Amino acid sequence: MASNLQQTMLDAIETELQQQVARLDSPRTKNFHEMLTYHMGWSGEGAGPQATGKRIRPLLTLLSVSSSSKEEKQQGIIMNWLRAVSVAASIELVHNFSLVHDDIQDNSEYRRGRKTAWVKWGSPMAINVGDALFVIANQAVLDLQKHYPAEMVVRAAGILSNCCLELTQGQYLDMSYEERTDLTIDDYWPMIGGKTSALLSACTQIGALLGYAQNEKVELYRLFGYHLGLAFQVQDDILGIWGDEMLTGKSAASDLVEGKNSLPVLFGLEKNGEFAKRWKQGPITEDEVADVAKLLEREGGKIYAEQVSESETQKALDYLDQADPQGEAGEALLGLANMLLKRKQ
Amino acid sequence: MASNLQQTMLDAIETELQQQVARLDSPRTKNFHEMLTYHMGWSGEGAGPQATGKRIRPLLTLLSVSSSSKEEKQQGIIMNWLRAVSVAASIELVHNFSLVHDDIQDNSEYRRGRKTAWVKWGSPMAINVGDALFVIANQAVLDLQKHYPAEMVVRAAGILSNCCLELTQGQYLDMSYEERTDLTIDDYWPMIGGKTSALLSACTQIGALLGYAQNEKVELYRLFGYHLGLAFQVQDDILGIWGDEMLTGKSAASDLVEGKNSLPVLFGLEKNGEFAKRWKQGPITEDEVADVAKLLEREGGKIYAEQVSESETQKALDYLDQADPQGEAGEALLGLANMLLKRKQ
Repeated sequence: MASNLQQTMLDAIETELQQQVARLDSPRTKNFHEMLTYHMGWSGEGAGPQATGKRIRPLLTLLSVSSSSKEEKQQGIIMNWLRAVSVAASIELVHNFSLVHDDIQDNSEYRRGRKTAWVKWGSPMAINVGDALFVIANQAVLDLQKHYPAEMVVRAAGILSNCCLELTQGQYLDMSYEERTDLTIDDYWPMIGGKTSALLSACTQIGALLGYAQNEKVELYRLFGYHLGLAFQVQDDILGIWGDEMLTGKSAASDLVEGKNSLPVLFGLEKNGEFAKRWKQGPITEDEVADVAKLLEREGGKIYAEQVSESETQKALDYLDQADPQGEAGEALLGLANMLLKRKQ
Repeated sequence: MASNLQQTMLDAIETELQQQVARLDSPRTKNFHEMLTYHMGWSGEGAGPQATGKRIRPLLTLLSVSSSSKEEKQQGIIMNWLRAVSVAASIELVHNFSLVHDDIQDNSEYRRGRKTAWVKWGSPMAINVGDALFVIANQAVLDLQKHYPAEMVVRAAGILSNCCLELTQGQYLDMSYEERTDLTIDDYWPMIGGKTSALLSACTQIGALLGYAQNEKVELYRLFGYHLGLAFQVQDDILGIWGDEMLTGKSAASDLVEGKNSLPVLFGLEKNGEFAKRWKQGPITEDEVADVAKLLEREGGKIYAEQVSESETQKALDYLDQADPQGEAGEALLGLANMLLKRKQ
């Protein structure tokens, strides 16, 4: 359940996102605009809350602004976080740009139960849809100048751009790993650091920056986001192999069937036992998936990943604790982290 | 022949581009870095000056900085334009990002006589190469902060981002036109405005801005770049049908064979005569290309395009004249414009 504050933020985020994307809403590019609104979950078949995603990243950003801001704490009613809503939208647009291109690159036909952009309009159009989302993300971050001095705008844009470079590096590593059979656990962190943690740490870092927090506090927020991202990704990796649907339903979505180089898999490859032998022989079929998952569990892949996830979770929560987030937003931030890490408070 | 000043600028541009792209030159992403250096023309088979392209856009940017800058004129030896070299590189990177994605979208196997990125490494990798070039373009523009106040950086980044949105709109129109047979000349300008003129006008506008020119002068530089882009594109369209190689060599590169919706073609379609009839029947083969080109010329397509090109050229040169560019850079700017417009001074 989202708190009142969270719901207010989510509404503001959605409104801002729609206004940003409306830059394409002109008579000649109406269909182009619709491609973006379809992907964002607002139009077309299956549109609605299930199609938009949870907007975790912009929410994390605004909660970081609000919980790190002294003024917010003192004055209570002033919604300082609203001044930063354009950068929250920017981060969500970056995330969605990467999803649209990712779906083409991975040949994924569905996302959140709906056909992906390239399936509906072909790859050439979908490449351009992703590009446009990225361009609008760049425009959105500059809109900060309405409420912040230019120095802050440049700093926020710099953090976001550096994070985007890490995204492309993580994406490169992920694709280049597909052909390799000599991977070890050491290969995991730079890939995941780029693909997942870079953007989450940008959310919390930029958030604290725009809350006018001191440099030390901004760094603590950044570290919180970074380890939150790692913990979240490792947990996702565990569920991708041993989640309920994976084992019972012979799900084609199992990371084992998809050949994903997740942390448990890299643990198994490094161990170089029975699992590694089977993995190197070629794609795992849906019929085998339950047995191979058990094999990897016996060899220690599951426990290892659980330990890593637990340790990263602890780091994330420790940094958040040190950052000392304030007020209702501070509580909501802790709640959101716990929700993401599937922990009971 | 490039003047001394132009050559000095071109050398500085190439050095800056290499430094910007080197952001990816880390042990884990060495191959990724090489994909970018290959596309930029610095590495791999066929690397060298023919492979890099002419760097017209960054040159136009730096000449605009220098020729619009009062200080430059007065002090002569101070190379104020060097302070703006990172944004010149940024614009060239945006151009190259669009080329890499364009080649995938158009299924083009060669560019400047070399295999395109997607042919060498596959579309998924090439999409990411384009994305990385765009990200580095964003980082490069922020490097302006070393030499300019943050307000100027934000303004320059804003102009560039707006131009990028126009690029994606032009690209959308271009692709959406492929399926249409009801096009008229009115459909040409928004496509070409986005695909060619937006970036050229960003060069001259940002250049004058960073030369600390007055607003009126910045606007004149922008208009110069905009009409230069239109004139240049229309001339390119003419050569794409009636250029020497097109008619003599039964070239597969003819715009008629490729089905390109260029200005002469749209003139012919609007006229709705014999040419339009043949065009709507399906792809034109290499055997027919000389006859169809003659048909379109008889119906007035060539003369019309020549008149438009002449008129846009005149507008460009008039705006440049009003902008009153100064010094050696001013002369070089006029020379570059004349060279692009294939006119004798």
